[in-house]
Amino acid sequence: MTGGPSFFDVVAAQRAHRAFRGDPVPDELVERVLEAATRAPSAENTQPWVFVVVRDEARRTRIGELTRQAWDGGAREYARGRLAPGFFDDVERGATGGVADAPVLVVVGGDTARCPTVTLAASVLPAVQNLLLAAGALGLGSALTTLPIVAGDELRAAVGFPAHVRPVAVVPLGWPARPLGPPRRRPFAESTHRDRYGTPW
Amino acid sequence: MTGGPSFFDVVAAQRAHRAFRGDPVPDELVERVLEAATRAPSAENTQPWVFVVVRDEARRTRIGELTRQAWDGGAREYARGRLAPGFFDDVERGATGGVADAPVLVVVGGDTARCPTVTLAASVLPAVQNLLLAAGALGLGSALTTLPIVAGDELRAAVGFPAHVRPVAVVPLGWPARPLGPPRRRPFAESTHRDRYGTPW
Repeated sequence: MTGGPSFFDVVAAQRAHRAFRGDPVPDELVERVLEAATRAPSAENTQPWVFVVVRDEARRTRIGELTRQAWDGGAREYARGRLAPGFFDDVERGATGGVADAPVLVVVGGDTARCPTVTLAASVLPAVQNLLLAAGALGLGSALTTLPIVAGDELRAAVGFPAHVRPVAVVPLGWPARPLGPPRRRPFAESTHRDRYGTPW
Repeated sequence: MTGGPSFFDVVAAQRAHRAFRGDPVPDELVERVLEAATRAPSAENTQPWVFVVVRDEARRTRIGELTRQAWDGGAREYARGRLAPGFFDDVERGATGGVADAPVLVVVGGDTARCPTVTLAASVLPAVQNLLLAAGALGLGSALTTLPIVAGDELRAAVGFPAHVRPVAVVPLGWPARPLGPPRRRPFAESTHRDRYGTPW
């Protein structure tokens, strides 16, 4: 697990991929990505993350349906007025098939039997971010999607989560359909304050 | 922002630091860490993260008091029965002064005017994880702490967060008092299922 690309290069290049080639992703790469995910911190080191690695086509299709339902059921209209047209089109293509076309969907859950609900998000999402970064370090595309989480019980049923496991995110993994440039972000100083909110950095 | 340690080395070495030397952390390093934080993904690229970089001693002392109050007010008793004795002692030292002794406390918030509450955690915590990893890549110690968040309005007041900014985490930054070994984690396969929860990886 040593060598490879530099940390700051991997961080600088992270983008959300919503279109994938059909080529398979070998287990070995999935394992490296999940190994990295599980190095993340969690409250009291409870490690409440749960990963279901979905390759089965019927199940991926089902998750794709749930994603599209959530999109059609309100997310599209919410997004339409907020996103720039090119970005909206990209998100729409992802929500209506692009994401579910990935050869691997990792459904991430949080185990409430291990970790209290109040710290569950802070104990699972850092692992998700490691997962995304590790995918990028290996040349894989990925994205943090929460749209299928809206489906709640239907998503639970699709992957057999018991009642004590709460869906947190769905992460597609695959080889990018095309290379993506660097992310568009505001300069960090616009979000940063010195000693007290309102005092510019 | 290129060169430096390898991505997988940085990920493998991440640990929570709760004891720091007094030496200052230059602005330049804080900036590199926050620059990395703001490369993280967020829902609809809303980038709702807010960072207050606290160096002021009175304000750090106040945040330390709030942390200790939360610890004394229930967290200690909750943790005592759950954590191994050595780990408990380390957390207790952190909660009763170690964390607040860091020369920099980054209070992280989420701006609900930018991002709906339902996706706020998934839009701020990946940035927090980038922040922690970047600190490690530069040799700094850090930790994801949520204990002072319990203080709610008192923490808001300590850093002047307006009503639309929700406290998410407090991250100490400083030079580690001592080197820490690799993290203790269960093998990833114990948390990983194939196609459906319950089917072992």
